[in-house]
Order: sequence, then structure tokens, then C-alpha cells
Amino acid sequence: MSLLTIGTVAFDAIETPFGKTDKILGGAATFIGLSASNYVNKVNIVSVVGEDFPEEYIKMLERHGVNTKGLQIKKGEKTFFWSGKYHNDMNTRDTIDTQLNVLENFDPIIPEEYQDCEYLMLGNLAPSVQKQVIERLRKRPKLIVMDTMNFWMDIMMDELKVTLKLVDVLSINDEEARQLSGEYSLVKAAQKIMGMGPKYLIIKKGEHGALLFHKNQVFFAPALPLEEVFDPTGAGDTFAGGFIGYIAQTKDVSFENMKRALIHGSALASFSVEKFGTERLVDLSDDEIGKRLQQFVDLVQFDIVLENTI
Amino acid sequence: MSLLTIGTVAFDAIETPFGKTDKILGGAATFIGLSASNYVNKVNIVSVVGEDFPEEYIKMLERHGVNTKGLQIKKGEKTFFWSGKYHNDMNTRDTIDTQLNVLENFDPIIPEEYQDCEYLMLGNLAPSVQKQVIERLRKRPKLIVMDTMNFWMDIMMDELKVTLKLVDVLSINDEEARQLSGEYSLVKAAQKIMGMGPKYLIIKKGEHGALLFHKNQVFFAPALPLEEVFDPTGAGDTFAGGFIGYIAQTKDVSFENMKRALIHGSALASFSVEKFGTERLVDLSDDEIGKRLQQFVDLVQFDIVLENTI
Repeated sequence: MSLLTIGTVAFDAIETPFGKTDKILGGAATFIGLSASNYVNKVNIVSVVGEDFPEEYIKMLERHGVNTKGLQIKKGEKTFFWSGKYHNDMNTRDTIDTQLNVLENFDPIIPEEYQDCEYLMLGNLAPSVQKQVIERLRKRPKLIVMDTMNFWMDIMMDELKVTLKLVDVLSINDEEARQLSGEYSLVKAAQKIMGMGPKYLIIKKGEHGALLFHKNQVFFAPALPLEEVFDPTGAGDTFAGGFIGYIAQTKDVSFENMKRALIHGSALASFSVEKFGTERLVDLSDDEIGKRLQQFVDLVQFDIVLENTI
Repeated sequence: MSLLTIGTVAFDAIETPFGKTDKILGGAATFIGLSASNYVNKVNIVSVVGEDFPEEYIKMLERHGVNTKGLQIKKGEKTFFWSGKYHNDMNTRDTIDTQLNVLENFDPIIPEEYQDCEYLMLGNLAPSVQKQVIERLRKRPKLIVMDTMNFWMDIMMDELKVTLKLVDVLSINDEEARQLSGEYSLVKAAQKIMGMGPKYLIIKKGEHGALLFHKNQVFFAPALPLEEVFDPTGAGDTFAGGFIGYIAQTKDVSFENMKRALIHGSALASFSVEKFGTERLVDLSDDEIGKRLQQFVDLVQFDIVLENTI
């Protein structure tokens, strides 16, 4: 059940109505790795950081079952940095600063021991880099899940469409689905996007849950109604990590199992937003996850007997 | 299982990106009545129209099982009229014209044969009128469900709070829940609002589904992802009609049964938005409703066995 993820390992500085952080650990691969590590013993990551990246973060990731063999450390360079400020509604944010640093010339080198990869999670990065990773794997993984964002649609739509043809599952948010398809209706958007390559499409709607499309089937996973969303940073990546982690653990790529994976992803994401950055994820027990899953069951399960409804 | 509903019976003129109507049949009591009539043989309505209200509409309502005994027809007066235009996203709309007409001095007279009312649906009207109806029933109904809107919060908050103390279930949308409670988080809003009287709170989120709160329990009913929302007018009332209609049919006011009622309400609302006004509701078969309910089951049901999840 070898799981490989690529994505950023980064510094984030976050401001929300609840507070403000200095540079803290962030990045797509970080959140995906920590989230997926609840399901598989070893999450192999491919990423890059600078000389300024603290050794303690690497040790923490390793301790949580994230294999950092594929994490390049660039001497004399600096780690990718993002800084953002969330508005009062926590649904919108302004980017204050983005410093690409080591990401500018990222060459995603795959360590030999990662070549047995069965499940591949392409965290948000340039679509050309995501494609390179697929090409560098000698055997095509059983399942390739791709995350991306509006930024790449704005500046690299052609490259994005090429990479899209190579993946099984695409994970984007509702606005991105509309931008990519040119359709306002998410149902129509999903049909168009599945015509671009991915057989499965996940549309994330933040606090309004997530939809999974496949052919003419659709499944909806709710978001847990929370008293407070403390920091939404990394929630989408945490969701993706729970999704592919659960699939890698169960070795089942059926639509039925993807439904369960979507619920697991949603459960993990609901923890992630409770504290700043990765703070909640690094301190999460299986027991807590089990209880949270029960809350999702209680939230949506009902017992309509269809023969007797009307 | 006597069901009584009050609310407007009105003319609507609607413009959406898909087209434009002349004056067509609308109003909260109309949508609630037609929706609930799928569950009970007779839906008693209390409302008022003017001399200009077509006889054919009344016949149509009667044919669908809506008892119009309590529908007052005011000689020399005109029916309530609302005109609105939906924006491209179909989530927001501008009111172009509101003519209260007969509603200005509405005295909600309860016909004697309505006094056996067990289930009372207070459709959107002035909270003082809603309260009057409760007071004029000699026996308190088993369940009182109240719908209201931001308009009354803006101009009659005090009266609204008085009526709130008398009802069991309040049904409002997310923005109204925030306005009423002063809380942005819907979980916090729900706790505050349930402190104002209603033991149950439904928060409608339009295309994002609906939440049902009771004490510390919460249930979520999704909205069906649709290719097109053609006309959202009356969707909330149709939802309320399906909700209370199902409860009146099953005579069960438990939280478990309210979950099912919420799904029925959502299913009915998903039909309502497919055509202008009441067009889709008046042409709806039990078989279609059964199939739609199956779509809701398929949309959210999953089979996580919690002992084996992690």
C-alpha cells in the first residue's frame, strides 16, 4: 500500500480573526502527509525546502510516519513562504506575500525506494511538475489523485489540461470547477471536467461539504457544523490526505469505497481547522478520529424505507 | 392528522436568467399547501386574496387537496403581489415591486372546521398575525412550525421574539439565523435561537442543504445537485410543506422522524425549482417523489463500520 505524495513543504504566516502566527510549518505535502499517516505506516513525500527549514520539523514529520527521503534540502536557498489573512467570514482570504524561493526550480526527484508507489497524491504544484512525477514512475500507480488551484488555471491552463488527461481523480473547489469548465452548475461542470480526463471528480465546497462525481453517480459528504473555524489553512490538503490515505489502507478504488474515503477526508479536515496550521493534526488520536466519524454518521444517516414513503 | 397552514396566497412576477413570467400563482400558503398535499388528504389553509384572484386557481388548489374554506376573498380589493428578479447565480434576487393590497389588514379567521388542527404551519407573515392564529386555536396543536424572514427581523423584532416563544420549530435561512442571533457560526446561532423558544431549529442553506438542530443534536439534509435551478421562488415554502406534511402523515414528532421529514421536504423543494412558480408541483406523481427520495439516499448514504475504520 505504498503511498507517494508530492506538494509543497512550506512556511506559512497566518492571520485570522482569532489571532496571528509567525512563520509556522505549512505546505500541501505537509498536511497531506500528516493526514494520510493516520491510515498508512509510511507516507513517502517528494518536496523541497531551503537551508532555513528547521531540523525539528523534519524529525516531527518522520515521527508521524512521513518518509522525508524525497525531501530535498537546498543549501543556500530559502523555503517557500506564504502569508495570508482571512476575512471575518473565514471563507475568503487575501494573500499578503508569496515567496517561491526553492520552488522556482523544483526538480521532483523520485528516490528509488519510492518506485513501488501504488497510490499517488499530486498535491498542488505547477501542473508540469505534477506531470513529471507521473512520467518518472516506471509503473503507473493504481490510483492518481490530483489537486490544483485557480492560480494554475489563470497562467498555465494548457499544461494543466495535459496533466488532467493522466490522472484518475481531480480534487478542486467549486469556484475552480466553474473556472475550469466554464459552467456555473456544478453538475454540468462535473460532466465537462470528467470529459477532460479524470474519471472521478471531487468538488470541495468548504463549510458546505464536498461532492464526488463518477459517470452519472454523485455522492455528497457534509462538513461538520463547527462552533468555530479557527484556521482553514490546509483543510483541503488534509481532506485529500485522509481520502487517499484511507484508500491506500483499504486497497479498494471502487466508488463505494471512495464514498467512505470522502467521509474520512472530511473528518480529518474538521480537525485541521480547529487550530493554527498543523497543530491539531500532530496531536490526534485514533480514538478521536473514530468519535468524529460517528458524528458524521449521526449527521447524515436517516432510515427512510422507500416502499412506505408516500 | 389535521394540518392547518397560514401564509400568503399571491401573484408573483418572476424574472430569472431563463425567462420571465407575467403574474402567476405564488405565495407561501400556496406552495406549502401543494407540497403538503402529497402527504395528507386535506390541507386547511387560512389566507386572503382580492377580487382579482382567478376562480381557476382556487379550483386547482381544491383539486390538489387544499381546503380553501379559510381563504378569504375581499370584494373590491386586490391580491398581494410580489415581483422579483434573480441574479445569474440564482442565490440572490432583487425585489422589484411589493404591493401588500389585501394583506394590509389581514384578519386570520379560523373556520370552525379547522379547530381540530393537530399540526400548524405558520407560513411567512407578520409575526403578530402568526401569533393571532395560535391564540385563536382552542386547543394547542401537537406541533407548531414557524417560517419567517429577515424583513420581520428588520421592522418587528420584538413581536417576532414574542411569537418565537410559542412555537416548536423555527425554519429560517442561514443569513436570517445570523441576524436573529448575532452569531456568525451557525452552531452558536442555533444554540442562541433555541434559547428564544423553539425546541427545534431548521436552518436552510439553499443549494447547500438544510440543518436541523435540537438540543445538542444536529442533522443535515443535502440539497440535490441539479443541472439547473430554473426558479427558486417558493422552494423554502415547498420544503416546509413537505416537512410538516410528512410529520402530519406519520403522526410522529420525534427527532428521528423529523430527520426523515427534512429529507422529504428537500425532495419536494428539488422539484419546485425545476419550473416557474408552482408549475412543477401541480404535476407531480408519488412515483416521481419515490424516485427522488432514492436519489437522496444514494447521495448521502455510506456504510462505514466504525469498529474497523482506523
